[in-house]
Amino acid sequence: MATIDDVAKLAGVSIATVSRVFNNSPWVSEKTREKVLKAAEELGYKPSMPARSLAMKKTNTIGLIVPDISNPYYAEVVRGIEDVCNIYKYNIILCNADNKREKEFQYIDMLKNRWVDGVIFHCDYFSEEHYEVFKNSNLKVVLAGRTTKFDVPYVGIDNFKAAYDAVNYLISLGHKRIGIIHGPLDDMKETIDSVDRLNGYKQALIDNGLPIYDELVKEANFKYKGGYSAAMEMLKGNVRPTAIFAISDIMAMGAINAVFDKGLSCPEDVSVIGFDNIDLSEATRPPLTTVSQPMYEIGAIAARMLIKIINGENLESSQVILKHKLVLRNSVIPLRS
Amino acid sequence: MATIDDVAKLAGVSIATVSRVFNNSPWVSEKTREKVLKAAEELGYKPSMPARSLAMKKTNTIGLIVPDISNPYYAEVVRGIEDVCNIYKYNIILCNADNKREKEFQYIDMLKNRWVDGVIFHCDYFSEEHYEVFKNSNLKVVLAGRTTKFDVPYVGIDNFKAAYDAVNYLISLGHKRIGIIHGPLDDMKETIDSVDRLNGYKQALIDNGLPIYDELVKEANFKYKGGYSAAMEMLKGNVRPTAIFAISDIMAMGAINAVFDKGLSCPEDVSVIGFDNIDLSEATRPPLTTVSQPMYEIGAIAARMLIKIINGENLESSQVILKHKLVLRNSVIPLRS
Repeated sequence: MATIDDVAKLAGVSIATVSRVFNNSPWVSEKTREKVLKAAEELGYKPSMPARSLAMKKTNTIGLIVPDISNPYYAEVVRGIEDVCNIYKYNIILCNADNKREKEFQYIDMLKNRWVDGVIFHCDYFSEEHYEVFKNSNLKVVLAGRTTKFDVPYVGIDNFKAAYDAVNYLISLGHKRIGIIHGPLDDMKETIDSVDRLNGYKQALIDNGLPIYDELVKEANFKYKGGYSAAMEMLKGNVRPTAIFAISDIMAMGAINAVFDKGLSCPEDVSVIGFDNIDLSEATRPPLTTVSQPMYEIGAIAARMLIKIINGENLESSQVILKHKLVLRNSVIPLRS
Repeated sequence: MATIDDVAKLAGVSIATVSRVFNNSPWVSEKTREKVLKAAEELGYKPSMPARSLAMKKTNTIGLIVPDISNPYYAEVVRGIEDVCNIYKYNIILCNADNKREKEFQYIDMLKNRWVDGVIFHCDYFSEEHYEVFKNSNLKVVLAGRTTKFDVPYVGIDNFKAAYDAVNYLISLGHKRIGIIHGPLDDMKETIDSVDRLNGYKQALIDNGLPIYDELVKEANFKYKGGYSAAMEMLKGNVRPTAIFAISDIMAMGAINAVFDKGLSCPEDVSVIGFDNIDLSEATRPPLTTVSQPMYEIGAIAARMLIKIINGENLESSQVILKHKLVLRNSVIPLRS
């Protein structure tokens, strides 16, 4: 394999000049640059990336940490990030934290050591510990799909308002006994999606003078089976819901099947509303009414923001809230009297 | 931040010695090693990864290239790989090639330059071009979920036999007009999953003296909507199938919904059998009968093989075929006479 020496000899320049060319130094004439690149091409020479990293401290790579790549929500967010990174010629290192804090911190550490240019962090919660770790790491970071009280750039939605709107819609159709299947609540009491959405649910009930039944508030793990079990438990209880709000589409898919497996009908006996609007939400029977998150945009905008930060460009706004909307399909109908 | 200089001064050794310690060189006494590590800890010194990479040529990181992370099949394979990598303390760089050859080669190039210790490559097809690129790159590679005629280690299943068994099962239940929804066929005519499975389907029909109807052979893109459209086209045609074999569960989910949306019943009018046995195959109504691939094992074994190769250990076998099996649920019944 050709070395930097060979290239320098063939081009008739010094090794330092070859190095400067490959590190995009401005201190090289156009003519010299062409000569070096031509020699490199002729010899099939490629500078090794770690060597370039050492010299340039720029890798054109960003790290992306997500909690669970098997959730279709993340697949959509990742697509938005990839499309923007393709345009700007950035590679992506994708890290699956498997919903474990410990792995999140391991990955942050690995990304720091590998000198990525920045990180898009999509976590379930953003704690003070996270904030401190990022601050001390000098890693440029943008949060995707999360808001935070800390001074960190983010792109997200208003989870409280989105849940409030979903439940308010059910109430407007006459539903009074409305169940919620929420995600795990963080014991650190930080603001997390699940807490925001649960609070939105409660506030909508309160504002409409409706009671909150403990039996109708169930926790599950954002998976199909979790949604199924939570809904089944609810349907077997003393307070039978006429509508269920699941805070992810995958859990809503479980809830619909629980309704059928209990010998009831959806939406005739129990309406079900989801959250996210993943591709498969059209695939349920009945097709799922849901709160749509702009998943692709969350990813795309987070990537664009991070690349601007890396390049030292100004952000118009460093904390971006995107709009959610209700997507009406057939899994929700007015309460039958 | 502490530098290697600071550590050397505090430990009372040379910079070269500190470097040797962090590169795990055997030419350092245990006493010196302890002294250096103690100094490094006291100062909070961490060697930068690219510097270490240059010295050691070992990164404890493997690259993983998959065609489409949004397909739940890959989520399961990735889980198997992650669990083994966790045990052996390897990080994973996940690359989503988005079903594009060009991106596969870009990622191979990036991984080579970044000096990962090896790559797990999960492609739809493994062409001569791939073989040459890997051979010339000196990258250690294991194919997951694929077999190949080339001399490359792999873990996969017998796709021909698996499809043959699925179709043979339908025939044993009396079905004669059996449709197939296969994936994209590669124009390079290399062995790929889709071709193997299509050939297994044809051979089962031939061996049982049944005709192959062109109208019942449809191509789709491994997505829910593709499966839906392909099945719908089939059901609107002149040769009405009594059973459909979709070569992925996601496409089978589309096929089931097409049957219902056409005003027919599954399995009463049309049986549907899938392939993969992803989590959601239990979530369809009726629950999906399918050919189970050992997805987790494919990932886990591929990772174990790659780590053995990296460490220069012997492989018992470098080309591993795992068993598939039929999982019987409710979407397939005997032909009604």
